[in-house]
Amino acid sequence: MSAGIPELADLLEPIQGDLERMRDMIAVQLEDRSPAVGDLTAHVGRFRGKQLRGALVLLIGRASGNLSHEHAAVAAVVEMIHLATLVHDDILDAAVVRRRVASVNQRWDNQIAVLLGDFVYARAFSLSTDLSSRLASRVLADTTRRLCVGEIEQSTRRYDFEMRQEQLEGIAGAKTASLYAAACELGASYRMGQDEPADVELGRAMREFGWELGLAFQLIDDCLDITGDEAEVGKTVGTDVEDGKVTLPVLHTFARADAATRARIRDIFMAPGLSGRARLLREECDLSPGIEYTHARAAELVASARGRLAKLPPSALRSGLFELGGFVLGRKW
Amino acid sequence: MSAGIPELADLLEPIQGDLERMRDMIAVQLEDRSPAVGDLTAHVGRFRGKQLRGALVLLIGRASGNLSHEHAAVAAVVEMIHLATLVHDDILDAAVVRRRVASVNQRWDNQIAVLLGDFVYARAFSLSTDLSSRLASRVLADTTRRLCVGEIEQSTRRYDFEMRQEQLEGIAGAKTASLYAAACELGASYRMGQDEPADVELGRAMREFGWELGLAFQLIDDCLDITGDEAEVGKTVGTDVEDGKVTLPVLHTFARADAATRARIRDIFMAPGLSGRARLLREECDLSPGIEYTHARAAELVASARGRLAKLPPSALRSGLFELGGFVLGRKW
Repeated sequence: MSAGIPELADLLEPIQGDLERMRDMIAVQLEDRSPAVGDLTAHVGRFRGKQLRGALVLLIGRASGNLSHEHAAVAAVVEMIHLATLVHDDILDAAVVRRRVASVNQRWDNQIAVLLGDFVYARAFSLSTDLSSRLASRVLADTTRRLCVGEIEQSTRRYDFEMRQEQLEGIAGAKTASLYAAACELGASYRMGQDEPADVELGRAMREFGWELGLAFQLIDDCLDITGDEAEVGKTVGTDVEDGKVTLPVLHTFARADAATRARIRDIFMAPGLSGRARLLREECDLSPGIEYTHARAAELVASARGRLAKLPPSALRSGLFELGGFVLGRKW
Repeated sequence: MSAGIPELADLLEPIQGDLERMRDMIAVQLEDRSPAVGDLTAHVGRFRGKQLRGALVLLIGRASGNLSHEHAAVAAVVEMIHLATLVHDDILDAAVVRRRVASVNQRWDNQIAVLLGDFVYARAFSLSTDLSSRLASRVLADTTRRLCVGEIEQSTRRYDFEMRQEQLEGIAGAKTASLYAAACELGASYRMGQDEPADVELGRAMREFGWELGLAFQLIDDCLDITGDEAEVGKTVGTDVEDGKVTLPVLHTFARADAATRARIRDIFMAPGLSGRARLLREECDLSPGIEYTHARAAELVASARGRLAKLPPSALRSGLFELGGFVLGRKW
């Protein structure tokens, strides 16, 4: 294993062909005779991102010796569900619209974004019902429910500085780790023509691997939203504080801060009419204890996830999954 | 058959028990351990409405002699998909937010409404993947795509007074009639444990019946949005003009109006800052030719739909489906 942070491209190299098939299937699913829809789905490409969730279906499918002809389609369904959630994340609150009038025109019309996300969900479910086993449909319909519940809970917990870490991780897990868990479970246990999983025990172990890796991924995301460089991260940073989301680096810092610092953090999050909340938070509050703590927690999750890989036969692919944990922890994007 | 407009309650009387089972299943699906979600789904009841789409699965299931133990679940999936679209219809555009600031607080937070709709979709798909046949999942995933495409096309055609009637009906059909068509098709052709339809020919005939009935339903809805009494209709009327939706009564009137009337209609739809557009349209423009034409078109569709019922064996239920056309045309709500 190399020292330093592994390159994602290197880790995905063994499944390049599978990933290409996955991307082709996504492109076909997002085509539509309606020109209005075609114009929209063409723009969806901007959300493509790392496609880690789909890649995990394929990596674990290969590493477990369980890869089938339909794994690329399962991976496509997983990525499309993720894509739909990203499109819906773009919906602005009435409150946020009022607060950020300037940025509204940079975003899509809310109604169109809702319908486009619904379209992508529908295409994902449609593809999943065309598969020869119902395992993917069942696991992913339930996972979609969990994603929504996680997002709803996060939304109702805005500006909540009294949350326990366990609650925060439960929410972050539901909204992010659950799809990683489903991807890894299906990679190990999906089999064509059979509704039952190929290997229940391995499926469960890989589900746990995915959950821990996905939660670590989210925790690092939360750190990057505070410390990240916009150009490097490749998306707007500082949106959590703008949206009132209290993430672990903030929660941990807040819990250990003196009364004056607490008051200042609350103000930066909540005072009406404040602009540049993210910059204020970064410049005025020393969040380094929370950032360090969050990194340590992510490292602990990755260590536990790596332990689960012992259930897979030794191979270069298994080593790659091990290194993927290093990418998740060390990534700057 | 009775003279006058049949009462919906009388027409649904033969399937009361089935409808109760359907409602119970919907209630179970919308439960969630998360208190945040439970609070929200409790409010979803306000969207319950006529449940005509679910009722059609059951009425046609019984009238065709094809009713199975799982038809109530299929009906529940159909109604939940409809419910999800209604929740998402509540999303406000950034533009509408700006125009109607006063009403924003009467509505839910946009983000929550998006997530709640996604949750309802996920529960619908989850229930459909638990059924012993995949026919419902397949038909309804594809129908959901059509609903979204219809809504997207409608959205991109706002303020378009040059549309052809055929285009308008294609859009109204996709966004409304397609779910009626799917409900009727599944009522006649869903069978437990078999992915193939029970009777392809009857399924196709009932699909056409549902399409025509659903399109007629939408056309009457478009008339009620102009002429209806808010208290009687049971929902806000005049929203089409506020949202820039050009419906058949307006399109037909516009196409035959003189230049001055056309200019006035355009102004009422489009002039910035105008308030009470619906009232202005009703009071200043004589839409009666368009309303009459739309009613005649709906009657033509219902007549054609009724002809398709000849494929069903004669029964009181078949007569009830015939009368349902009378309800759709004559309804004031």
